[in-house]
Amino acid sequence: MKAEIFVKLKSEVLDPQGKAVSGGLKNLGFEGVKDVRVGKYIVLSLDDKMPIEEAGKKVQDMCEKLLVNTVIEEYAFRIEG
Amino acid sequence: MKAEIFVKLKSEVLDPQGKAVSGGLKNLGFEGVKDVRVGKYIVLSLDDKMPIEEAGKKVQDMCEKLLVNTVIEEYAFRIEG
Repeated sequence: MKAEIFVKLKSEVLDPQGKAVSGGLKNLGFEGVKDVRVGKYIVLSLDDKMPIEEAGKKVQDMCEKLLVNTVIEEYAFRIEG
Repeated sequence: MKAEIFVKLKSEVLDPQGKAVSGGLKNLGFEGVKDVRVGKYIVLSLDDKMPIEEAGKKVQDMCEKLLVNTVIEEYAFRIEG
């Protein structure tokens, strides 16, 4: 079983890394890029015997306790059976 | 228009960050986590007037030229109109 977690900074938080990437894209001549936000993409391989509801609760718990700084970050996740 | 880019290390590349997160989850008592891979989640806000085919080519070009180290990383992206 695989869980994909998408972590990004809350919209009101300044993203210096995103600004740097945005500048880099402009320097390379890419037009039409209004904004760039850079976050974390985490892929967990979970035990296949784990029931999917339990996996969902566990992934949320892992996010809240370790993987996400909930003060400045928000997250979403997807589980594939 | 929004483009989401999912970047992760190729499977044959060691992921020390993933190993550290995996250890951290074990220390917090989370069972059933076989492996952890940590990558980049990049969200681009693109000009709405850009045709979606052009946007696709542009995002791929941006990945190949700046956002992804194609020697050790692989990527996928999704565009929402």
